[in-house]
Amino acid sequence: MSGVSSPIDAPSLAIVGGGQLARMMEQAAVSLAVGVRLLAEGPDVSAAQVNPDTTVGDYRDLATLEGVVEGCAVVTFDHEHVPPEHLRALDAAGHACRPGPHALIFAQDKQAMRERIWELGGPNPRWSPVVDAADVARAAEQVGGFPVVLKTTRGGYDGKGVWVVDGPDAPEVAEAFASGVPVIAEEKVDFVRELSALVARSASGQVAAYPVVESVQENGICREVTAPAPGLSDEAAAAVEMLAMRIAGELDVVGLLAVELFETADGRVLVNELAMRPHNTGHWSMDGAVTGQFENHLRAVLDLPLGSPKPRARWTVMVNVLGGDVGHLYDAYPHVMARDPELKVHLYGKAVKPGRKVGHVTAYGDDLDDVRERARHAAAWFEGRLDDEAEHDEHEGQGAR
Amino acid sequence: MSGVSSPIDAPSLAIVGGGQLARMMEQAAVSLAVGVRLLAEGPDVSAAQVNPDTTVGDYRDLATLEGVVEGCAVVTFDHEHVPPEHLRALDAAGHACRPGPHALIFAQDKQAMRERIWELGGPNPRWSPVVDAADVARAAEQVGGFPVVLKTTRGGYDGKGVWVVDGPDAPEVAEAFASGVPVIAEEKVDFVRELSALVARSASGQVAAYPVVESVQENGICREVTAPAPGLSDEAAAAVEMLAMRIAGELDVVGLLAVELFETADGRVLVNELAMRPHNTGHWSMDGAVTGQFENHLRAVLDLPLGSPKPRARWTVMVNVLGGDVGHLYDAYPHVMARDPELKVHLYGKAVKPGRKVGHVTAYGDDLDDVRERARHAAAWFEGRLDDEAEHDEHEGQGAR
Repeated sequence: MSGVSSPIDAPSLAIVGGGQLARMMEQAAVSLAVGVRLLAEGPDVSAAQVNPDTTVGDYRDLATLEGVVEGCAVVTFDHEHVPPEHLRALDAAGHACRPGPHALIFAQDKQAMRERIWELGGPNPRWSPVVDAADVARAAEQVGGFPVVLKTTRGGYDGKGVWVVDGPDAPEVAEAFASGVPVIAEEKVDFVRELSALVARSASGQVAAYPVVESVQENGICREVTAPAPGLSDEAAAAVEMLAMRIAGELDVVGLLAVELFETADGRVLVNELAMRPHNTGHWSMDGAVTGQFENHLRAVLDLPLGSPKPRARWTVMVNVLGGDVGHLYDAYPHVMARDPELKVHLYGKAVKPGRKVGHVTAYGDDLDDVRERARHAAAWFEGRLDDEAEHDEHEGQGAR
Repeated sequence: MSGVSSPIDAPSLAIVGGGQLARMMEQAAVSLAVGVRLLAEGPDVSAAQVNPDTTVGDYRDLATLEGVVEGCAVVTFDHEHVPPEHLRALDAAGHACRPGPHALIFAQDKQAMRERIWELGGPNPRWSPVVDAADVARAAEQVGGFPVVLKTTRGGYDGKGVWVVDGPDAPEVAEAFASGVPVIAEEKVDFVRELSALVARSASGQVAAYPVVESVQENGICREVTAPAPGLSDEAAAAVEMLAMRIAGELDVVGLLAVELFETADGRVLVNELAMRPHNTGHWSMDGAVTGQFENHLRAVLDLPLGSPKPRARWTVMVNVLGGDVGHLYDAYPHVMARDPELKVHLYGKAVKPGRKVGHVTAYGDDLDDVRERARHAAAWFEGRLDDEAEHDEHEGQGAR
């Protein structure tokens, strides 16, 4: 079975990158009977495990990309790391890259993103390009003084490529410039929490906005998401949704756009990052919304009408499962499933390494405390965080072990 | 990636048969990170399209079966057609067939099923073995007279192997005996509707019962399912659920058991058929229950705690998409998705042939009339039944075309 032939005459779809986002896109593609051709980093990576039409190769090599997308009408992405010049070459050769290179650049290049958000009058934190290590003191002054956040403009993810710097001579300064990638400085925003606004935008321009969620990051990695964001007024939520929809439209994003935001004590929101793909802060939607983000990403890039982003429960909480002390994740299934028959488990088929995202769990219901406790307990169990979990989990007696 | 190695150390699972049931099991297996090794009838059949570890071969050949299940701890099935002697051979060689041959025989052999239900005191229609064509008149008398239903005891599905016979000389009598498979006669039950009770039973004996549903069959093929069955009293529903749980336990079913039933005008229910696998009357649960039947089938055969079978909406209606006038199912997506952003579409990647099950659609909500109209409209659109659909769909003005 080739991903480029379809018994239902669906357009052929190529996905570049074989991580869990591609894996969950493939899972959604099963229901729509859309065949997927995958370019994967290795034969056993997360998405390759569940896709018969997989090419193993390097997405930084144009010839490899050309070979994979041959015969595919639409190309989409598991990550934002494909070189922009390759995206433009594919686009010029008639493959619809969705999102297109002209949009994706704003998720690839943080300086380009800051400039574009500024042009749009969007709520940036204070920021400045930094020419070199000697320029950090000037940049810091411009954004309100130390501590500042230094970011490489390209290639960062999950906390990589980001440093909090206390002064011009801090050791992180040298680190930030070590790779030779341009660097920007941003004010270290004194936020009360992080929010995320997720919208799907189709090639025709239809937009569907998911409810704004609250996310909790630890060490730069998404840890927990609550949908909708508790205590956010309807007006504030609508303003954030409209901001995300406007960015999606102005940047001509096709597919999903996640706008990660800081909420400050005085109720302002500031754009932190943009991602143009299904996003960790949208995983809750697989079980918690009428249409999951992976299905809506497929619909958007195939230019099909979008599915409803409406939540199915009052509260949905997703907690990431990170690699922990438990090497054999399957060993956690009996307890986790027996304790909570309503819990939804999504593991990614990845080998456990400390701190690596290897899955997520989702709980939903009417009582936020209960929903959160259930999801946290399950993630902690998968991670072997039995002591740590006891802090979260005050209801849990010794007997349940 | 081999289905028999797992980064999370899940037991290896083999599925025999590559139809849509295996396809939807595989989709559920993605979330649980359980690798599947598939024995498929051809390289492009429904489940093979979405599974990298597929062997093409004949499930009636023991050596082929042995090759596929080599290294697999658990074997389960897309259909009930694997010869019982082969199942016993696999079982004897240490592969856990779930359901096991001792249970599956009651889904494979209708006479064995009738005898066992009788032993259990379960509600059979009147029935009788039929020795040969000349014996039909006697058998008919025994079950209450013509018309009677003749069934081959083995190999039937979707209305095949079933004949309604008006008299001893009807042409269907010869047809029924043509294959040489033993035949039974059953009274033609004067039912008011058909019900189905679906339960999951794990290897350890845990049982979860889905709500009893109403199903509508046309020409022996499931057409529409409403969950829960409208107008069924709580007492009657509980009695039917308990009957299905009792059958599952007594027969030692592992996996899913569907008990298809006739409801009569005087409120009795009679067992029509048993199926030991995910069942068409349970497809609604993928979108309408906390845990879909495919996930619970996997949990049951892997002996994991079962997920909640609780419905997520007041009403869920599933309508099958049968092969119709529209060859290119994808062409229906824009209308179907735009008209109803909350509709769930599941196509099976099968080429359209008249009357063939090629997918299903599901709608859910609080208003049964609305939910039913939405699901029916979508299925009709996929099938090109534009006139026919207008009958169902009285609210729909000409403008919506």
